[in-house]
Amino acid sequence: MRDIDLVIQQTVRALLQLRGETAEQSLATQLVRRFEALDDEGIGTFFNFLLTELGPNTSLVDEAIEAYRRNRGQVELADLADAAESKRLRLFRTINTAPGGISCLLKLRTELLARRTGSPEFRPIERDLGHLLKSWFNRGFLELRLLDWTTPAHILEKLIEYEAVHEITGWPDLQRRLAPDRRTFGFFHPLLPNEPIIFIEVALTRGMASSIQSLLNTEPQPIDENTDTAIFYSITNCQRGLSGVSFGSFLIKQVSAVLSSELPQLESFATLSPIPGFAAWLEEQQPIDTNDRGAVERACANYLLYARRGDLPLDPVARFHLRNGARVERLNWHGDTSEKGQSESHTMLVNYRYSGQDLESNHDALVLDGVVMASAAVIESAGTHTTPAVAVESPDDVAH
Amino acid sequence: MRDIDLVIQQTVRALLQLRGETAEQSLATQLVRRFEALDDEGIGTFFNFLLTELGPNTSLVDEAIEAYRRNRGQVELADLADAAESKRLRLFRTINTAPGGISCLLKLRTELLARRTGSPEFRPIERDLGHLLKSWFNRGFLELRLLDWTTPAHILEKLIEYEAVHEITGWPDLQRRLAPDRRTFGFFHPLLPNEPIIFIEVALTRGMASSIQSLLNTEPQPIDENTDTAIFYSITNCQRGLSGVSFGSFLIKQVSAVLSSELPQLESFATLSPIPGFAAWLEEQQPIDTNDRGAVERACANYLLYARRGDLPLDPVARFHLRNGARVERLNWHGDTSEKGQSESHTMLVNYRYSGQDLESNHDALVLDGVVMASAAVIESAGTHTTPAVAVESPDDVAH
Amino acid sequence: MRDIDLVIQQTVRALLQLRGETAEQSLATQLVRRFEALDDEGIGTFFNFLLTELGPNTSLVDEAIEAYRRNRGQVELADLADAAESKRLRLFRTINTAPGGISCLLKLRTELLARRTGSPEFRPIERDLGHLLKSWFNRGFLELRLLDWTTPAHILEKLIEYEAVHEITGWPDLQRRLAPDRRTFGFFHPLLPNEPIIFIEVALTRGMASSIQSLLNTEPQPIDENTDTAIFYSITNCQRGLSGVSFGSFLIKQVSAVLSSELPQLESFATLSPIPGFAAWLEEQQPIDTNDRGAVERACANYLLYARRGDLPLDPVARFHLRNGARVERLNWHGDTSEKGQSESHTMLVNYRYSGQDLESNHDALVLDGVVMASAAVIESAGTHTTPAVAVESPDDVAH
Amino acid sequence: MRDIDLVIQQTVRALLQLRGETAEQSLATQLVRRFEALDDEGIGTFFNFLLTELGPNTSLVDEAIEAYRRNRGQVELADLADAAESKRLRLFRTINTAPGGISCLLKLRTELLARRTGSPEFRPIERDLGHLLKSWFNRGFLELRLLDWTTPAHILEKLIEYEAVHEITGWPDLQRRLAPDRRTFGFFHPLLPNEPIIFIEVALTRGMASSIQSLLNTEPQPIDENTDTAIFYSITNCQRGLSGVSFGSFLIKQVSAVLSSELPQLESFATLSPIPGFAAWLEEQQPIDTNDRGAVERACANYLLYARRGDLPLDPVARFHLRNGARVERLNWHGDTSEKGQSESHTMLVNYRYSGQDLESNHDALVLDGVVMASAAVIESAGTHTTPAVAVESPDDVAH
Repeated sequence: MRDIDLVIQQTVRALLQLRGETAEQSLATQLVRRFEALDDEGIGTFFNFLLTELGPNTSLVDEAIEAYRRNRGQVELADLADAAESKRLRLFRTINTAPGGISCLLKLRTELLARRTGSPEFRPIERDLGHLLKSWFNRGFLELRLLDWTTPAHILEKLIEYEAVHEITGWPDLQRRLAPDRRTFGFFHPLLPNEPIIFIEVALTRGMASSIQSLLNTEPQPIDENTDTAIFYSITNCQRGLSGVSFGSFLIKQVSAVLSSELPQLESFATLSPIPGFAAWLEEQQPIDTNDRGAVERACANYLLYARRGDLPLDPVARFHLRNGARVERLNWHGDTSEKGQSESHTMLVNYRYSGQDLESNHDALVLDGVVMASAAVIESAGTHTTPAVAVESPDDVAH
Repeated sequence: MRDIDLVIQQTVRALLQLRGETAEQSLATQLVRRFEALDDEGIGTFFNFLLTELGPNTSLVDEAIEAYRRNRGQVELADLADAAESKRLRLFRTINTAPGGISCLLKLRTELLARRTGSPEFRPIERDLGHLLKSWFNRGFLELRLLDWTTPAHILEKLIEYEAVHEITGWPDLQRRLAPDRRTFGFFHPLLPNEPIIFIEVALTRGMASSIQSLLNTEPQPIDENTDTAIFYSITNCQRGLSGVSFGSFLIKQVSAVLSSELPQLESFATLSPIPGFAAWLEEQQPIDTNDRGAVERACANYLLYARRGDLPLDPVARFHLRNGARVERLNWHGDTSEKGQSESHTMLVNYRYSGQDLESNHDALVLDGVVMASAAVIESAGTHTTPAVAVESPDDVAH
Repeated sequence: MRDIDLVIQQTVRALLQLRGETAEQSLATQLVRRFEALDDEGIGTFFNFLLTELGPNTSLVDEAIEAYRRNRGQVELADLADAAESKRLRLFRTINTAPGGISCLLKLRTELLARRTGSPEFRPIERDLGHLLKSWFNRGFLELRLLDWTTPAHILEKLIEYEAVHEITGWPDLQRRLAPDRRTFGFFHPLLPNEPIIFIEVALTRGMASSIQSLLNTEPQPIDENTDTAIFYSITNCQRGLSGVSFGSFLIKQVSAVLSSELPQLESFATLSPIPGFAAWLEEQQPIDTNDRGAVERACANYLLYARRGDLPLDPVARFHLRNGARVERLNWHGDTSEKGQSESHTMLVNYRYSGQDLESNHDALVLDGVVMASAAVIESAGTHTTPAVAVESPDDVAH
Repeated sequence: MRDIDLVIQQTVRALLQLRGETAEQSLATQLVRRFEALDDEGIGTFFNFLLTELGPNTSLVDEAIEAYRRNRGQVELADLADAAESKRLRLFRTINTAPGGISCLLKLRTELLARRTGSPEFRPIERDLGHLLKSWFNRGFLELRLLDWTTPAHILEKLIEYEAVHEITGWPDLQRRLAPDRRTFGFFHPLLPNEPIIFIEVALTRGMASSIQSLLNTEPQPIDENTDTAIFYSITNCQRGLSGVSFGSFLIKQVSAVLSSELPQLESFATLSPIPGFAAWLEEQQPIDTNDRGAVERACANYLLYARRGDLPLDPVARFHLRNGARVERLNWHGDTSEKGQSESHTMLVNYRYSGQDLESNHDALVLDGVVMASAAVIESAGTHTTPAVAVESPDDVAH
């Protein structure tokens, strides 16, 4: 084993043998610095060490199992849970007390997730770390912040860096996205005060936007009593290490509430969303003329309403919004004419609509009955379909 | 069962059956409000419910035990840990997302601790909640704040409310304790921004203080090059619900570092501490004349150096400081002439000295060898003693 | 002349001879420190020095007068104004660049005002300083701040220190005055960030308060839809050195606007004011039985409506509020039963009412026509009166 | 006269006739809005109105002159100064109480300065406004702020907008100028919280920088014990309306003090300055070969040391720094190879050195004796010169 790997393992062992706290933080700080220098091989070695040396104490587990088998009481169950807890948890908790500790842990989890397929044996480590992060990133810790042109530059530059849906091309583009007819909100966490955990970009418009290019390039419009729609046109998770700890639904709902209270004239809250899996799915269907708008829309409606992975929509963005309780509102041909828009969805974009009073029932329809809720227009686009599961729209929905 | 108890149980059940997050927070908020109205009986009923209905799923536990017995692998251990986790954890995590949720959880834990003896069956609940709180109150989340006369009044009044060692008699007394020759520091947590978790009061003095009354009543002195000592004269844990999640040692060390850097002329860091168990212990020894200073000091030195609970000092304050690596520096007859001082320690106070370079070795001497480190003067006070375990002082120690 | 006086004069001369700015601030800082040590005699000596040595350059004044007499143009007038400006102004401006400079200047003006009668020759100095302070304390610089229980203690203690109308007896009294059914607002200035310039205390009540004792001692009431009145029960100027630079009217109006917007249910804005000159005035009238409520009220109404100094009300508090456009709304027998209330106004207090739409016309009635506006009830109290100038109340006024 | 001009004049008249303050601020706010819409002609009309209608009351002036002639006392002088004060001052003070009032006044002064030559009759207005602004922008009001990458974007963009010496080409250029080996400081004023009044850009370097292009384009360097020099490479006044109210000298000295205290290893403070008047001056001298480095340096040294306007240096940048007490330290051929550098100074830049202990004496040598202080090397460059006024350098100066 290489020197650095040995040093790390010795530091970890020293840390776990400590009975006082005096040296704990300084050892943790050393560890964090050493991890930064670690290459791929070193990380793998470290994970193996975590797996083999820092698991639960198996003789304690065996005893706890025996005790539980005898008594089957709640106390024995609690003891069993204690015994089954690995020593890794104490290590991770200590690392969090060092400066930069949380970033180190997030990086470790990112590495674990990347090795998920290649090294399934690391799953117990990933489980421990995921549990801890889920605890620490409990929503009670999150602070919603409006990000605008008065926000410090070192935070704004993270928006440019992280934006994953529609690239921010530079500071002028960013400034446009923070103009008075736009709102950007992010969740922040006390352990990462200068980094958004997730952020959402909203356009305040008259009517529902149908084209991302015109939305991004239009001149700022005054906010007035005709500003009736909030379009969520981009939502970005910034921390790969928090994968699976989801904040998106919570963010959309909190932002909707904030906007409603600031601008009571807002009537609709909807996304302008990509359909990243559409083109790939279409390739496996009966070929159609992709310049024929009607044919593409029909296919797209079918994809969104009926294509599934398990019981849930096949398209990942659809899955996210529909599980949140949104519904499919409108399909937009030439909604994204960029190269990416053409290749992944033949320029189609979709508006998912978030309607406060329907969120629960839409969510239940999907999860309990497997039905994707949609506007009458989209359902009609899809044409007749053998599955009777299409929701009958309420009268006021038809108007859209 | 009473209505309110039923409503709470139904709310909890509804909360745990939710698959989406839409209603989660509103149900959690309802729960928090209902807990506030709960009387003693209701709390007991609720704990019983937590115990019987929200434990781990035992058939999953049994399966996980079987799987582990077959394979004894790390993955099976992780699955076992997962299975043994109770549903209470999810409930507690959700409560934390409601406004006031954390205070509610701290109150629940306070109630559990109060029932520790009478209702030992609740220990599994206390374990779950303690685990979560330990996670959330990880030291990485704590922020050290200087509290002085420019601090908002609603935070300062908490000092008056919580101070547990030497009562603050009102705002003038508080203002004296925040004068320029004093420092008060507290740890704050993002979930409780207006409440100190723990705070410490420091007097900056010339030489080591020996009397709490003169320290509290003396006029403010200018800080100059003769200000060579920082006296930690009061340290108070504010949250009973965090009992067992200790921050004291960490606080003393961080405060020492901050003061050293602000005032490089400081040479000694020491406490002026009560000896709460001394009088009670003395009652069970050979009677002495408690007006004979020499006799009392000898008894006190013996109490601090040799009276034990297990391997550790019997006196709780001694236990805390000596485990932190401090040593017994000086005994102070008439150090606390208040009624409390007379009744609990025959007016004796003690200085525990925190000396940066000795903390590790002092701690190890206590924990590994059972030896309480002390100054030569205190050791001499104790007189001959059969136990040979008294530490030989280093030459520079003798000077004190 | 004493040494300190000579040193000060030499420092001032050195300061005014400087052509660069390098040493200016350090000399100014020395001056500020020396002024602090000055006794009464030294201050007088310094004022004499300011008068005789730092006046305008008279030969320049003579030239400017000549030039103006020849031409009588705007340019010559401007030159004349320049020539007539004294060297004191440059000194005062420079002092303001030193730390604590503004407090020093405020203290100088306080001293000048105290010598107004005894040493009228200092008026030109007072004029110069008054001009500068009026400029610097222009309302554009003032910031309105809500002062509540979250305000830093070192600012709150100024309220206790300065309160001039109804003494604050300590922190519990202060806390009551900052409870949720009270509001305190102050104006702050960037040169004195920790000192209110003026502050006002407001009680939010149901109906118009009539007794200061019950207002100060009542338990906090919830704010609800019945909270229809804001009672300004105390307004205190904190800086004697700013005497004559008035902010009170501006403060009342800004606070009314802030409260209206926070609490739209507020219908009345009124004071509960002392009548400090009433008893003294009454002594010089026909004797009445001061235990006869009717007689006292009649006398009081006459005092407020008809007793004058020049064209304006004789009572200084009446003068302030009535010039602001308020009107006399209601007289309150036993409104202030304290010793002070008994001796200065036979326990009478008065409500002055600030009614947004009438402020202009009330003010004009007083200033242009010499008429004090009042409610029908108060006018009736005053009895028949030979002066026909009493305003006829509008119908809705009668209702009060 | 046009409607808008009439409306403005009527508003001003109404404002000055007010005896109460009730309507003052709302009229002032109207005025500010109307000024924004004013074209060039309207501004001229308004200035004429200010001149003819809002001057001093001449009959009061005449009376004051008479009184002064009789008595020639200080009180009469003060009365004369009062009488000679124009009504414009009250107008300007009132405008400052409106939102945006100060920006309006700064714009008015900018307009007045632009008309200085064409309309000299407006000088009395400019004098009044200048006096007020000088009072309000007294250095006691200025706050020094470090501007770095954590500064809000809407403030940082002002740096790009205002930078007048070396254009900031965009956000990446700005970010480079705010990197850890750079410092930017600005003075801010409470009336303009989001606008620097003046700012200075500093590079922290090893040795004295000689080329602006390499300074602007070099990669960030770590700050370490070899970082011995602070180079002030750009200083920009942001508010034209404050022309003549100078803060530059004060800023350089305060920034030097801040940097000295942050980085005690700094030994030299110097500028890297343009020589904007050199090329124009050279055109009027005996022609030289501008590609001959020696010839250009000799000419440049002569220009800086001996070319004068009155007693002060001809070059405006030299005049500023030398009056501040700096000295000419080094000439840098190819210091600025940009088009601007070539055309205005044949690529020459100069370092002016600020040496704490010499600032006073350097300043006095210039102002009292007309001698420009310089390093031995620069003096030698200039060659023999008939004027004997060249300062003999002290030995330690020669080393440079």
